[in-house]
Amino acid sequence: MSELPAPLDRLVRQLSRLPGVGRRSAQRIAFFLAREEGDDARRLAQAIAALPEELRHCERCGNLASEALCPICEDSRRDDSLLCVVEQPENLAAIERSGAFRGRYHVLGGAISPLHSIGPENLRIAELEERVREGRVREVVLATNPSVEGEATALFIARRLKPLGIAVSRPATGLPVGGDLDYVDGATLSRALEARRRVESEDE
Amino acid sequence: MSELPAPLDRLVRQLSRLPGVGRRSAQRIAFFLAREEGDDARRLAQAIAALPEELRHCERCGNLASEALCPICEDSRRDDSLLCVVEQPENLAAIERSGAFRGRYHVLGGAISPLHSIGPENLRIAELEERVREGRVREVVLATNPSVEGEATALFIARRLKPLGIAVSRPATGLPVGGDLDYVDGATLSRALEARRRVESEDE
Repeated sequence: MSELPAPLDRLVRQLSRLPGVGRRSAQRIAFFLAREEGDDARRLAQAIAALPEELRHCERCGNLASEALCPICEDSRRDDSLLCVVEQPENLAAIERSGAFRGRYHVLGGAISPLHSIGPENLRIAELEERVREGRVREVVLATNPSVEGEATALFIARRLKPLGIAVSRPATGLPVGGDLDYVDGATLSRALEARRRVESEDE
Repeated sequence: MSELPAPLDRLVRQLSRLPGVGRRSAQRIAFFLAREEGDDARRLAQAIAALPEELRHCERCGNLASEALCPICEDSRRDDSLLCVVEQPENLAAIERSGAFRGRYHVLGGAISPLHSIGPENLRIAELEERVREGRVREVVLATNPSVEGEATALFIARRLKPLGIAVSRPATGLPVGGDLDYVDGATLSRALEARRRVESEDE
């Protein structure tokens, strides 16, 4: 029983499609935007509408960019010998936030998924091979998601890169730092146990 | 250290202003909208931009509406003798969701707040008096928020309505149903204790 006027109801439905926004928060946001005070609604609509015009993919790595090259590809202090492969620009952003990687990136644009008819030819894998063939990359880190599709994509790329004779790695899977063992899912726990590492005691 | 391209960064900042959306969820939503697949971004921008054109305030009660009158004012099955006064359209929506009220509404557009220079003349109080003077209303329920401003507004309106000789009430304050006593704030707890009601045992 929706008693909301049509324009507001339409907005609530659109907002509910966003990741992490339930119907309740969608309603709260819609009522907020419906108040005329301030220019919030107009500015937000403009910022969203501007995306397709002002945003593009970096010609080199596939990251989101406002110029031909993204800031990371433009940055001369980055390590050219390390190339980190991710599925989406948001995965790149997450690794950047961690500050743990100072090499270059390559964004595939997704993962191989027969269910969604996404094959290797739909991803930027040929471009990846080309970059590796240029000769500066010594190691490719396959940081696709630790999901079935991500694992399959990593395996596929590892095979394709094998003839090029460079090192290919994948981030370790295991227990999340700071987590509680009770809340770790079974698959992660069994992987972490399989990949257990010997603790070196100090007098050894 | 924002490594996001300018258009995306702008969108994240706009999204972070929405109620209940932190910087992290704003980023997640922005990356979602930046993907070209589907028309989500375009449709959302349109739905937001359409608000000021397609949405107005109900001429009678002040609720949000797409026509001159809102669906509740149009509904002939509503009880004309009960009038519920709320601060904002979202408060009206919350009461409607509860299904506990079948009378009419009057939306003030806010609460009296000297801090934000909102006086009685900035709210739809004159319109309320006019509606009551029409003669069909027998009771006004002052359902302004249980906050300092809401209480002050209710008190102010109660005084203004006194000469008109109708019943004026306010929803009870007390313990939330289904809550845990440990999590109830002190002010609510002391109000609930003050307003305690005798339990009638069955044989009395």
